[in-house]
Amino acid sequence: MIGAVALVSTLVDSGVEVCFMNPGTSEMHFVQSLDAVPAMRGVLTLFEGVATGAADGYARLAGRPAAVLLHLGPGLGNGLANLHNARRAHSPLVCVVGAQATYHARFDPPLQSDIETVAHNVAGWVETSGHEREVGSDAARAVAAAHEHGGQVAVLVLPADVSWNDGGVPAAPVEVPDASAVDPAAVAAAAERITGASCVLLLGGRALSERGLRAASRIAAATGARLLVECFPARLERGAGLPDVERVAYLAERVAPQLAGATDLVLLGAPPPAAFFAYPGRPDDLVPDGCTVHPLAAPGQDVEAVLDELADRLASGVEPVVTAPATPPAPTGALTPQTLADAVALTLPENAVLVDEAITAGGRLPASTAGAARHTLLTLTGGAIGQGLPAATGAAVAAPHRPVVCVQADGSAMYTVQALWTQAREQLDVTTVLVNNASYAILRAELDRVGAEGPRERAQAMLSLADPELDFVALATGTGVPAVRVETAEDLVRELRRAVTEPGPHLVEVMMRG
Amino acid sequence: MIGAVALVSTLVDSGVEVCFMNPGTSEMHFVQSLDAVPAMRGVLTLFEGVATGAADGYARLAGRPAAVLLHLGPGLGNGLANLHNARRAHSPLVCVVGAQATYHARFDPPLQSDIETVAHNVAGWVETSGHEREVGSDAARAVAAAHEHGGQVAVLVLPADVSWNDGGVPAAPVEVPDASAVDPAAVAAAAERITGASCVLLLGGRALSERGLRAASRIAAATGARLLVECFPARLERGAGLPDVERVAYLAERVAPQLAGATDLVLLGAPPPAAFFAYPGRPDDLVPDGCTVHPLAAPGQDVEAVLDELADRLASGVEPVVTAPATPPAPTGALTPQTLADAVALTLPENAVLVDEAITAGGRLPASTAGAARHTLLTLTGGAIGQGLPAATGAAVAAPHRPVVCVQADGSAMYTVQALWTQAREQLDVTTVLVNNASYAILRAELDRVGAEGPRERAQAMLSLADPELDFVALATGTGVPAVRVETAEDLVRELRRAVTEPGPHLVEVMMRG
Repeated sequence: MIGAVALVSTLVDSGVEVCFMNPGTSEMHFVQSLDAVPAMRGVLTLFEGVATGAADGYARLAGRPAAVLLHLGPGLGNGLANLHNARRAHSPLVCVVGAQATYHARFDPPLQSDIETVAHNVAGWVETSGHEREVGSDAARAVAAAHEHGGQVAVLVLPADVSWNDGGVPAAPVEVPDASAVDPAAVAAAAERITGASCVLLLGGRALSERGLRAASRIAAATGARLLVECFPARLERGAGLPDVERVAYLAERVAPQLAGATDLVLLGAPPPAAFFAYPGRPDDLVPDGCTVHPLAAPGQDVEAVLDELADRLASGVEPVVTAPATPPAPTGALTPQTLADAVALTLPENAVLVDEAITAGGRLPASTAGAARHTLLTLTGGAIGQGLPAATGAAVAAPHRPVVCVQADGSAMYTVQALWTQAREQLDVTTVLVNNASYAILRAELDRVGAEGPRERAQAMLSLADPELDFVALATGTGVPAVRVETAEDLVRELRRAVTEPGPHLVEVMMRG
Repeated sequence: MIGAVALVSTLVDSGVEVCFMNPGTSEMHFVQSLDAVPAMRGVLTLFEGVATGAADGYARLAGRPAAVLLHLGPGLGNGLANLHNARRAHSPLVCVVGAQATYHARFDPPLQSDIETVAHNVAGWVETSGHEREVGSDAARAVAAAHEHGGQVAVLVLPADVSWNDGGVPAAPVEVPDASAVDPAAVAAAAERITGASCVLLLGGRALSERGLRAASRIAAATGARLLVECFPARLERGAGLPDVERVAYLAERVAPQLAGATDLVLLGAPPPAAFFAYPGRPDDLVPDGCTVHPLAAPGQDVEAVLDELADRLASGVEPVVTAPATPPAPTGALTPQTLADAVALTLPENAVLVDEAITAGGRLPASTAGAARHTLLTLTGGAIGQGLPAATGAAVAAPHRPVVCVQADGSAMYTVQALWTQAREQLDVTTVLVNNASYAILRAELDRVGAEGPRERAQAMLSLADPELDFVALATGTGVPAVRVETAEDLVRELRRAVTEPGPHLVEVMMRG
């Protein structure tokens, strides 16, 4: 058995059954192994950023890693931005990066570069497989590593000869420990502090499951403590029948009222709050003066058990506050952030996955969808744009029986627009709501915020997508995805209803000018 | 003056007058500086890989760096593959990577990551600017560094507060030393060895200028020494009136006859020859047994002077052998690599820049274009695909009065297809000849070569772009580039003639099925 077959067999035995890939010559034996190991599903993408973003979306839905197969250092570079988002999402992910044969690197061939240094930018575990005898056990350890610390990126560098040499040995799965328990004394101490509105529970990671949110809601109802969800959650359960918890705002000055009066901030699966950017002359520390941060449950710890324990102590017999089913009236007229959000909320199918990379155009989505059909929300965890279309693709692979709706900004869409082709190829049930406002609208706002002075004509030109205007119907059609452009809210509702009903991918281009 | 204005002013004073960019919030002051420093031309791209590839193409034509402006670690990641190609091309390039404000990084905000480790993968010079007082001089040193070692990537990490703080000081240009001279004794010793066909002169880098090629041709004509050009030259002058020198083949077994009988291999601006990949059971060392490699002029040394000196010694009064004007007869019938090459050769305008990322479909281009109108050829130096469309874009910015023809494979095109939008926005005179064979055809050949055995149905599916078939006319139209699809050689000739005549970008999709 060649090394590649041992590797792929081990991945499958360890629970990794999908590989998103952009292979090259050095990965040909891995590709060939798909025939020897049919339990591994290969999903071809046209660009590595699609493969890594899809693996992130897959992991968020499946709760276990997909593999990604990339071609040497440049392939890893192309995949890096969405691996960054996966890192911030704590998505378990196994990234196999092909490399030159061990004995060939001495020639410094054109594609040679230092892969491991790049990998350390995003990965918690990086190893190079040195021998075909070991590549099976390396793969098993990579999968286990991907599950550690609440989920992380594991990069296994695979030299071509290790892949093609005979003598591969599949390895048994490496046991993955359960999420570690939090010290009961720390839980008890926290329970003492949760006494009213001066205490804020900041929920993140696995606290955003139905179980976690219900327990948190009970605690808040019983104690008066406030709840917040981290700014960009990897996966948040939402909609009718679930507690609706406000998210930490994007801008520091909007976070200030959210945390005003807080003396205790208890972290439950979330990292300490951090402003996305600093701005000249503005405060950048989100934690108010006099507020103590208590990191109670880190990613990788069993935050749901902590919340259940706290609810048992503090909210015995108290029910969570859940959202009643409520959809907005059918929107009419011009396409605006409000009518967009209302149209999405109104047409969202039951049990959908909602991917939100709408950036500025999506500002009204949280409010409009709070009482919509129950759904799972995925957001842009790491701020590296171009995550929406790939994540939607991977989510649809992980959850083939759930409709996926991706609300996607135009500028960000162009980073990884190639994802549409994979949606067409795999006939994934993804509806892309493509908001075309012909600009990097968020950067226009940021240009104001950073206090740049003086004339701006040439600067503004760098933030405009208006000349020429992108035609996403043509772009989608070119990649095999049926698409339609809408100019009114009524048309949007009608086309969304049609798109989510028909199987396979669709794109609705929402013209939001001015 | 804020740091960003000092930085941009210094870049302009140092000869950097174009910046290809994908800015984000942390780069807003740099963007704003375009209004304060109008001599800097900002060129917006929709994806960082387009920006870096364009800067590479620009540098190859202009012989001096463009700047690239990228957004933190993920932006650098997105640009990495074409920076890899730039590194292999010895293109001078100044890459400015925005970063969090120095005092804000402590919060580990979502976009925070270790930028410098990623940069070292591609850059010969990496620094982080620590203070607005120093950012001007940092920029001047970055430009000088970009010119060192025959051209390299210099990465300057720019924290947001260094960019926005008042107190910036523009710096005078740092003197860039001329290419260093080669030791005259080494030239004299080499001259002794160049005595006949057992000596091969391997030309690369700046030896591929008209001056270098003419001198080399004189030496070969006088001594019987053989000439070869490196496999993937960054910039090669070709066509009627110039010497036509064969390039080192891509596959080791085709290099063997090229170097058969060689006892001396003299490197003139080229690195030692290296096979792109190793293959199971095949030799991977291109240098024949008994052949000594003589590195006479490295990149960064004055190889043209060396060639002139050798020609003066060995070929006094001997003329170079140049190619007579010769274009193939007008091709007819099916679109094949041969009819494609003939159509390109026949229609190539005088003084064109020819960008070749046609991969398998381009195999006949070198022979067909040898006697075509004089042109400058750019190739895929580092093997990281997705270089053609961006490089053509940058070349057109650098040489606005030269027509650019880009022969581009389909699979590679999809890596950086966003480049078409920048061509439309800037109304660049680029004709893209997009070869659609609905597959990663080179990988089909590689799958055979690597000796993979057994069934291949699932593996072959990973190399196919046929389902769904990409429609590049729709993709180009969606980005604002007029496009047409052709199915016969006659139509290709007609459409190429039209495209190269009309100003602005065009795309001709060449259907090469089966």
